[in-house]
Amino acid sequence: MAQLSDKLLAELEIIFPPDRFLTDPVDCYSYAYDNSRKIFPPDAVIFPVNTAEVQQIVTLCNHFRVPLIPRGRGTGTAGGSLPEFGGIALSMERMINILTVDAANRVIIAEPGVLNQSIQDAARPYGFFWPPDPSSAMFSTIGGNIATSAGGPHAVKYGTTRDHVLGLKAVTGKGDFITTGCYTTKGVVGYDLTRLLIGSEGTLAVITEATLKLTAMPKALAGITAHFRDLPSCTEAIVRIMSLPQLPSALEFLDNGSLKLIRNRYSDMLPFDTHAMLMVEVEGSENDIPDSISAVLDACRSDGLIRASQVESTALLWKARKALSPLLKEIAPKKINEDVVVPVSTLPQFLEGLSRLCAYHQLHNVNFGHAGNGNIHVNLLIDPNNKEEVTRAEHCLNQIFDLVIQLRGTLSGEHGVGSEKRAFITKEIDQTTLNLMREIKRLFDPNDILNPGKVFPAI
Amino acid sequence: MAQLSDKLLAELEIIFPPDRFLTDPVDCYSYAYDNSRKIFPPDAVIFPVNTAEVQQIVTLCNHFRVPLIPRGRGTGTAGGSLPEFGGIALSMERMINILTVDAANRVIIAEPGVLNQSIQDAARPYGFFWPPDPSSAMFSTIGGNIATSAGGPHAVKYGTTRDHVLGLKAVTGKGDFITTGCYTTKGVVGYDLTRLLIGSEGTLAVITEATLKLTAMPKALAGITAHFRDLPSCTEAIVRIMSLPQLPSALEFLDNGSLKLIRNRYSDMLPFDTHAMLMVEVEGSENDIPDSISAVLDACRSDGLIRASQVESTALLWKARKALSPLLKEIAPKKINEDVVVPVSTLPQFLEGLSRLCAYHQLHNVNFGHAGNGNIHVNLLIDPNNKEEVTRAEHCLNQIFDLVIQLRGTLSGEHGVGSEKRAFITKEIDQTTLNLMREIKRLFDPNDILNPGKVFPAI
Repeated sequence: MAQLSDKLLAELEIIFPPDRFLTDPVDCYSYAYDNSRKIFPPDAVIFPVNTAEVQQIVTLCNHFRVPLIPRGRGTGTAGGSLPEFGGIALSMERMINILTVDAANRVIIAEPGVLNQSIQDAARPYGFFWPPDPSSAMFSTIGGNIATSAGGPHAVKYGTTRDHVLGLKAVTGKGDFITTGCYTTKGVVGYDLTRLLIGSEGTLAVITEATLKLTAMPKALAGITAHFRDLPSCTEAIVRIMSLPQLPSALEFLDNGSLKLIRNRYSDMLPFDTHAMLMVEVEGSENDIPDSISAVLDACRSDGLIRASQVESTALLWKARKALSPLLKEIAPKKINEDVVVPVSTLPQFLEGLSRLCAYHQLHNVNFGHAGNGNIHVNLLIDPNNKEEVTRAEHCLNQIFDLVIQLRGTLSGEHGVGSEKRAFITKEIDQTTLNLMREIKRLFDPNDILNPGKVFPAI
Repeated sequence: MAQLSDKLLAELEIIFPPDRFLTDPVDCYSYAYDNSRKIFPPDAVIFPVNTAEVQQIVTLCNHFRVPLIPRGRGTGTAGGSLPEFGGIALSMERMINILTVDAANRVIIAEPGVLNQSIQDAARPYGFFWPPDPSSAMFSTIGGNIATSAGGPHAVKYGTTRDHVLGLKAVTGKGDFITTGCYTTKGVVGYDLTRLLIGSEGTLAVITEATLKLTAMPKALAGITAHFRDLPSCTEAIVRIMSLPQLPSALEFLDNGSLKLIRNRYSDMLPFDTHAMLMVEVEGSENDIPDSISAVLDACRSDGLIRASQVESTALLWKARKALSPLLKEIAPKKINEDVVVPVSTLPQFLEGLSRLCAYHQLHNVNFGHAGNGNIHVNLLIDPNNKEEVTRAEHCLNQIFDLVIQLRGTLSGEHGVGSEKRAFITKEIDQTTLNLMREIKRLFDPNDILNPGKVFPAI
């Protein structure tokens, strides 16, 4: 507990009972990691239950100049919630009240520790849902979703978190309690601080309450899977599907590397000559579904198509993707997982370039993701003990990022920058704009106590 | 030309040819007004044609501490583009290039002076449109639309401008050239400066380029008009329509005051006992339209309904609303026009409270607007020469704003704060949050040259 003085500990003990204030390194260790597979134990963990407590701890951390790292459930993959420089992990997991369910106005107000899934459960009886759907939705918090502007498969139709939040309450790094946005779907009074906080990865303020905009559940949906003999046929189908007027509600892609992993475990799940696969979901009224399906099936057609067909249930639609998940976890410590986005029309060029780069650097790769948004999860498979291979992977990654920027893409679609991508952020954001962001950070958090070191490259 | 020194004029003359640099008061007067009906002539008008020129003039205005007021086509109603303290009007009307039309990625890149209608014309051949649809769309610029996060009737389904911009280029008040957002539909790298600029009414930066996200045009649409004997029956129908799962693409309301104006001019246009009217537009596939229509017709049904029926064409749908427009212009100098929003479920309570307040203050009022968003344009009809009536109107307006806030509404849905509502902004935004906004303003524009005095209340 190098960083926490006795004085600070004494102050914290007055405010927080022992079950909401951990300092034993063994206890703290549970808050040392996220899905980036890096380990940075905090010196203490605090579990606030209301805004006043958050404000108290922010004030203390300013006074004692101690890092404070807000945390949902630690499902992020970019290291955004890790106490890299020690300090206090501020776990929001006990602020789990849903304060308002206002079906008539399609609004839910909730505390930041509420799970995404709990919001869905609260909305469903009224025929609504909250569109952000990261794959962690069952276990991740809305506070974390907001901090990264999380998205998922349905972002292709519904957008990401920033499109579904009306307002926030938050405590800035300076300790100011602010209220942003409004309760209605329209509103232009003052600057849009709501979206400034969304995606800011806990570097500007601790979110203590969120007003979420709900959406009506689709009346009907259907799924299609399509198997292709080769990658170009598949990527061309993606471009054609995305040029249909009606957007699919999901358009997910698995490449040959992904399919190989699945085939190694489940030899019968896929046609033997499939080298690329699409999973497409369409939504609408019962009346519309047949037209939507045939439009997608038409768009898949080419010499490289093995077969495209409607699946009987959406559970079957996601079967291959779900089979892939645990297999990816098995190779987890041996992969570098990226989250790049390119304009959809450049996907053929990007995936071809990606293959070329991996071949050049002699690296195996597994790529899949939200093709409808051009959001591809690139996984480079490496042996972390093989230093020479790690170096090759770093070079390769650097060139992949250059390719992404050259195609007018972005380095992160939904995972954020955290610590994983801060070294690369200047590839995408020019120095002047980045300096302005740094100044905004200083305005909100003059002592740099909130999640220090994240998002920005070291100076 | 009190404010412009000879030195500054000499510098400007070097950069801008005479046809792009006006100083004759007669010429400048054309840039003295907007739709707020206030008059503030600028000391000069400059027409930049590129970002470099914008940066040069911002630098000069900083050096000479001269106000610079960015301006689209002056269609705003909140005084946001008026040179209240003199200075230079920066008319963006000659930056009218559409730089990219990328149908495959549903993106248009355009300069700020491009008219909203020109964007629609460029998008239509590909089956797309840009959803923001202020009533000024034919003549207003996308720069102005972005500065106020403009919306219109279709915002009930599509949201406002902030939902349809991917990225911006801009020159801050300090003179820095920044690039915000990205070209793709997903992206979470760095802070969301795009939406910080959207709705900031030209107080933070001069937008010099915008990357707009396009949307597919609906396959089919249909319109319904509904006439009600009394206001409560109408407002209850609004609430029922908005609780249908499928949102209408427009849900516009005219109150008895509006209908009276129409009836005085066109005696046969409306049923004689209509006291409130709805115009509803539904969209979808051809297959869906009949179901959508019958759902809306059902939702309109009540003892107070005179008749609800599908109209033959959308031109007929908007007939009453279009008839109202010139009539409102005729009474224009005699009305105070507001743009408040309340949660849809509170519309019955709000409109009833509004009637009560206007009766109490003995004021005639005409109310109409985007009921689906709870966005009502409240017009108090006054004789501006009757001081006592003007005072009563001010008291009434103050109480209307209090009612809006009490119902969890917002003071402006789409017109912005400008100079018209800055005195009231503290009703909605607390001092701490407002101070943070002021600090952001100082960060972007330390010498307060960009559109000074707007948005914030006088200290």
